[in-house]
Amino acid sequence: MELRHIEVTAEPIDPGSHDCRLVGSVLSRIGDKWSVLVVMTLSDGPRRFNELKRIIGGISQRMLTFTLRGLERDGLVTRTMFPTIPPRVDYELTDLGRSLHVPVMALGTWAFAHLPEIQEARSRFDRRGDGA
Amino acid sequence: MELRHIEVTAEPIDPGSHDCRLVGSVLSRIGDKWSVLVVMTLSDGPRRFNELKRIIGGISQRMLTFTLRGLERDGLVTRTMFPTIPPRVDYELTDLGRSLHVPVMALGTWAFAHLPEIQEARSRFDRRGDGA
Repeated sequence: MELRHIEVTAEPIDPGSHDCRLVGSVLSRIGDKWSVLVVMTLSDGPRRFNELKRIIGGISQRMLTFTLRGLERDGLVTRTMFPTIPPRVDYELTDLGRSLHVPVMALGTWAFAHLPEIQEARSRFDRRGDGA
Repeated sequence: MELRHIEVTAEPIDPGSHDCRLVGSVLSRIGDKWSVLVVMTLSDGPRRFNELKRIIGGISQRMLTFTLRGLERDGLVTRTMFPTIPPRVDYELTDLGRSLHVPVMALGTWAFAHLPEIQEARSRFDRRGDGA
């Protein structure tokens, strides 16, 4: 089991600032469930579209296309087409995308570790059902 | 400037597994932009609804209500009503919510640090405009 360390500057972001809202817009992209799964899958190396679809599972063709396009737009993933017959298209993390892997895994690991607590909290909340 | 360390087990999550999809569903909640901003704001201590609304800025009453309800359902935030006139409602992170602060800040710090690169990538992508 590989352990990594992240240094987190826990100081500076003012939640109401313009920068923080920009950060929010980035987070809502990269914190997206499918984006996280694509980044995690591509961290092992480049993959073709259909490989990604098969490995991730439960994602529609349309949603995978949309997710990859968003990651490409953010500079996190590159798309390379090879002029074979049929054409082959590879997706690969950029350096920026690779640097995202560590904090995404930190969040993923947190979510994984606390899944039972969260599911229990959800059941409790839903049972309450009084909307209080 | 305070530095924290997170240990990340970079091993185990298989992106196609049932667990990973559950993790994905948690991530899509907690990675949500407004949830992140609320968790960051509450990390300083409990706040009333209107304080949260003012500090975060740009969030509608409806969206803040919806976000707080989601965080409460996931067991990350508690809601305490005081029978004053007018009634006062405080929101506060639970222990689980506080434990989320570190990985959320890791992602927020990453987003903050790489914002210029991402914005540049977006402009480049949008200028290309060929949809290729």
